[in-house]
Amino acid sequence: MRVATYASHSALQILKGAKGEGFETIAFGNPRVKPLYTRYFPVADYFIEGTYPEERLLELNAVVIPTGSFVAHLGIELVEKMRVPYYGNKEVLKWESDRNLERKWLERAKLRLPRVYDDPDEIDGSVIVKPFGAGGGKGYFLAKSPGDFWKKAERLGIRDKEDLGRVQIQEYVLGVPVYPHYFYSKLNRELELMSIDLRYESNADAIGRIPAKEQLDLEINTNYTVVGNIPLVLRESLLIDIIEAGERTVKAAEEIMGGLWGPFCLEGVFTEELEFVVFEISARIVAGTNPFVHGSPYSWLRYDEPVSTGRRIAMELKQGLEEDRLDEILT
Amino acid sequence: MRVATYASHSALQILKGAKGEGFETIAFGNPRVKPLYTRYFPVADYFIEGTYPEERLLELNAVVIPTGSFVAHLGIELVEKMRVPYYGNKEVLKWESDRNLERKWLERAKLRLPRVYDDPDEIDGSVIVKPFGAGGGKGYFLAKSPGDFWKKAERLGIRDKEDLGRVQIQEYVLGVPVYPHYFYSKLNRELELMSIDLRYESNADAIGRIPAKEQLDLEINTNYTVVGNIPLVLRESLLIDIIEAGERTVKAAEEIMGGLWGPFCLEGVFTEELEFVVFEISARIVAGTNPFVHGSPYSWLRYDEPVSTGRRIAMELKQGLEEDRLDEILT
Amino acid sequence: MRVATYASHSALQILKGAKGEGFETIAFGNPRVKPLYTRYFPVADYFIEGTYPEERLLELNAVVIPTGSFVAHLGIELVEKMRVPYYGNKEVLKWESDRNLERKWLERAKLRLPRVYDDPDEIDGSVIVKPFGAGGGKGYFLAKSPGDFWKKAERLGIRDKEDLGRVQIQEYVLGVPVYPHYFYSKLNRELELMSIDLRYESNADAIGRIPAKEQLDLEINTNYTVVGNIPLVLRESLLIDIIEAGERTVKAAEEIMGGLWGPFCLEGVFTEELEFVVFEISARIVAGTNPFVHGSPYSWLRYDEPVSTGRRIAMELKQGLEEDRLDEILT
Repeated sequence: MRVATYASHSALQILKGAKGEGFETIAFGNPRVKPLYTRYFPVADYFIEGTYPEERLLELNAVVIPTGSFVAHLGIELVEKMRVPYYGNKEVLKWESDRNLERKWLERAKLRLPRVYDDPDEIDGSVIVKPFGAGGGKGYFLAKSPGDFWKKAERLGIRDKEDLGRVQIQEYVLGVPVYPHYFYSKLNRELELMSIDLRYESNADAIGRIPAKEQLDLEINTNYTVVGNIPLVLRESLLIDIIEAGERTVKAAEEIMGGLWGPFCLEGVFTEELEFVVFEISARIVAGTNPFVHGSPYSWLRYDEPVSTGRRIAMELKQGLEEDRLDEILT
Repeated sequence: MRVATYASHSALQILKGAKGEGFETIAFGNPRVKPLYTRYFPVADYFIEGTYPEERLLELNAVVIPTGSFVAHLGIELVEKMRVPYYGNKEVLKWESDRNLERKWLERAKLRLPRVYDDPDEIDGSVIVKPFGAGGGKGYFLAKSPGDFWKKAERLGIRDKEDLGRVQIQEYVLGVPVYPHYFYSKLNRELELMSIDLRYESNADAIGRIPAKEQLDLEINTNYTVVGNIPLVLRESLLIDIIEAGERTVKAAEEIMGGLWGPFCLEGVFTEELEFVVFEISARIVAGTNPFVHGSPYSWLRYDEPVSTGRRIAMELKQGLEEDRLDEILT
Repeated sequence: MRVATYASHSALQILKGAKGEGFETIAFGNPRVKPLYTRYFPVADYFIEGTYPEERLLELNAVVIPTGSFVAHLGIELVEKMRVPYYGNKEVLKWESDRNLERKWLERAKLRLPRVYDDPDEIDGSVIVKPFGAGGGKGYFLAKSPGDFWKKAERLGIRDKEDLGRVQIQEYVLGVPVYPHYFYSKLNRELELMSIDLRYESNADAIGRIPAKEQLDLEINTNYTVVGNIPLVLRESLLIDIIEAGERTVKAAEEIMGGLWGPFCLEGVFTEELEFVVFEISARIVAGTNPFVHGSPYSWLRYDEPVSTGRRIAMELKQGLEEDRLDEILT
């Protein structure tokens, strides 16, 4: 068995982790990045061109570790039909990609979610308005009342309630972003907190360095394109909240979609009242685990060797092999 | 001898460090967090319910490592009366908790402190006004002149000089927050710089990501509730200033309160002129050491193994045991 | 052979790395900092007073590792005349210190640079105006049109085109700062990505924590004095861009100045369109490598031991010694 992943996102960490557990490794993807995975960082034993070179992967006896990039490039439909073994539960894909199903899942897990307004005339606090399909925050705006909403929505051509299908109106929750990274071991039936990060976004993390006066002058708008990740630890008294939120998310997934296993991330903010408000779930490894190639403060607390999320996945595969239980974790 | 601490704040690191030095460990506190210290992160050999289960700790031959959470939950008076051995000098508690005594201590250490204004009519630059007893920055405001002060103070019901007892008026020092973590070994009579962090605060670290125009629109105010910590290294030419400040703080403590030993932190900002202005001292381990479970850039420079502040405490206890000098460091 | 460097900037890391590879080490500089390098962090076997104690360094058979502090304190002319062996290509110094030559170099490397405006009447977007010789951003201002430029320039006494020699007018590129640290091994003819950081600047990183309303009230201006560094990892799909930019920079240097080897850094920002716009090159070790004393996420991917940039330099020296090729890398 060889460990394979799409050559982007968190592939360096996944493949390094797999090598650390004794697996041979395969990166596949755009030939331009081949040197990254074979020369600059020699973590891939094989590099195969293509978004998903199925035949070659089958020949090499590969297991695919999915990442956000892999799913985005291949598309959910094709992922669901993959013949190469896939680490994780493919049922999760449709729950995660549909905004309504995702909300149903997270509500069942009793997470605190931002309120969604169907009717702008019910706005009774700050809201953030997100046009559907806009990437990286383009066209997002804040509003604080029904009147404010209608005035600003006009810029997007939204003039009456019939146009509302084009935007989502969400409670604006002020707080600092926090991304806890979990790993649920289906073999051991145990949840682990692997690490926590903070995203570094362009231009959202640039504007604060510009004085307010200059910002007003230059009429700067915000965008949230992720450029990198910064390591973070959480106030220790908040860890149990975060862990219990993770446990409930796994439990809800067991009830409605046959389980969630491997790495996942709850994406949210902590308010000044120290409440964790969740915006989204990523039901696989997130790039926020990349600062922790050599282990995180949390994984060092649990293990006496450097365990990244990538390596943790490989540990699970190795255990599956040794206990002859791979069929429980591959789909 | 067993190493014990209150189950919060930096207990994971303290107990992990103690285990690394061969001690058995005890966490005590709220039963809700028991799984955090025994299952998710198996660092506690014993978990005991209660804020301070004195009898059980005595039976188990425990030494308590104090943290901010422990002192806050138990209260200074009860800490002073503890029968279980305590790592550190309890005399420090009253110097640290009284704003006037703390200032006396830090002035004696020749630290640069923000000026305090007794009379708002003497305001000759930017000031920050802090209502006493307000947590997390609630009600804080900035003012730039006597007139500005009186206008804004009215919102808090402060109309004349008789009401001034309710607020502190402090020079507003503009600079970036820096938290150096020290360890003073009483056994070796040596100061060490363990690590440095940056706090991640809600909502202070959220507002910079909101464009000035939107901030004005939503009338956002700031709050400084600590949510987490981010690792930082300091410009190397500033290290000697930071270290000398730490040395003077220890020396002043020896002169006026019988010494300061173990971990402590000077909380301040660096101005654009690279001056370190100190706001406060924490005379024990701070949560800002939590990113460094597996050592910090500074502790790796000094040691050839991973030394967190928690582990450094355990190393001191071990040395005390081996040299039969525990009585010098426990009170 | 002993490894020597000026006692500031990144000397702790350089000397620690040299000791890790088995070298004896020398710090030289201001006697005030001697304890930093010999007692608090015992990384220097010798400490010599003086900005550049040539005779003593020759006697001790030293190789000097240059840093920004060393070059700034000694001055380029004296560095060029040094008799003590110097790691790196001294030819680089004049290309790097002259704004026009530096631009020629970086343009040849096909890096995306901010546009420079010779004529303010051609301003057709946001620009940043930098008075020559101003440190840390003093006097910098933003403008968005010719009219806006002339109005604001008047504060600096610039009233007509004859005064323009005193300022540089540069395209204002909005994006988040990113500092990738490279190492080019001349012995192996290989480029390596060592680590990436984010600078922590006073007061630029303080103002975002002040609400817009208060900023306007207090008339705060920005300054960019580096106080420290924060570890960062880059979005994995951007790594190949960064690496190719580094490769082209080395290639251009080989064509025009006889090469660039050892550590260097491209200082730039990532825009919201994920374009890397470069402002400057540092052709030697940068202080941004200091968070990675025990290795970075990138160096852990490549090596199975902790490799800082300082240690990587020592590894190159050791290889040069062993292969009798020191003359290729020392000048």
